[in-house]
Amino acid sequence: MEHSQYGLSVTLPVTFDTAVADTTAALKAEGFGVLTSIDVQQTLKTKLNRDFRKYVILGACNPVLADRALQAELQIGLLLPCNVIVYETASEHSVVAAMAPLVVLGIVGANPAPQEVAREADERLRRALAALEAAASQ
Amino acid sequence: MEHSQYGLSVTLPVTFDTAVADTTAALKAEGFGVLTSIDVQQTLKTKLNRDFRKYVILGACNPVLADRALQAELQIGLLLPCNVIVYETASEHSVVAAMAPLVVLGIVGANPAPQEVAREADERLRRALAALEAAASQ
Repeated sequence: MEHSQYGLSVTLPVTFDTAVADTTAALKAEGFGVLTSIDVQQTLKTKLNRDFRKYVILGACNPVLADRALQAELQIGLLLPCNVIVYETASEHSVVAAMAPLVVLGIVGANPAPQEVAREADERLRRALAALEAAASQ
Repeated sequence: MEHSQYGLSVTLPVTFDTAVADTTAALKAEGFGVLTSIDVQQTLKTKLNRDFRKYVILGACNPVLADRALQAELQIGLLLPCNVIVYETASEHSVVAAMAPLVVLGIVGANPAPQEVAREADERLRRALAALEAAASQ
């Protein structure tokens, strides 16, 4: 697993479509449903007639964690859902990256409840990516 | 307009539904389309049988800015789209808040191109909220 300044990522030896399906399943196993899905390739083509690689932005939400965060801090919706991106790097290679809530934590204030939620969300997203990586290396 | 640690917000003397419609129009005037919409009230009711106030998370995207950001930094999709939330505080009062891209800027690295895009997105979102506030005070 690689760390960037605002996320975690894994590279998988699978097609884009398989990566999207596997990611959705790995997120579900950690209690995250995919509430939104933005097809970036199609959006850029439609809006700007720009060719772009296969790329999707999934909005992943764990309802229990979201509920706890919202009860603690009403405007925390500005940081929800957790973004997970999947994009193609070659025909049989895809990257899956997740926003790391602990990075976003620096944005949130001193209220400890959202931080606790962020920590748990971070752990769960990390486990989802680790599971994808482990499955790919088998 | 009020500033929180990760966003900007305005309070409008209008119903929730009017606030959502006005916000969508104000975003459109600044080149942002609403790509995703999460009905938080309905989601918490469906998933957890939890009662919650009227609350929506809109995913706003300016395609030109998104394109520039993605060309500069492939994983910037982790920070897209820009979140704008609308929630009810009383029957005729609503709050509209936008994620401030300049706050998120701290997350992104030294690459200047995403920072330039974030600055422009920040200005545009700020103008959209200011327009909503000005219209409400007339």
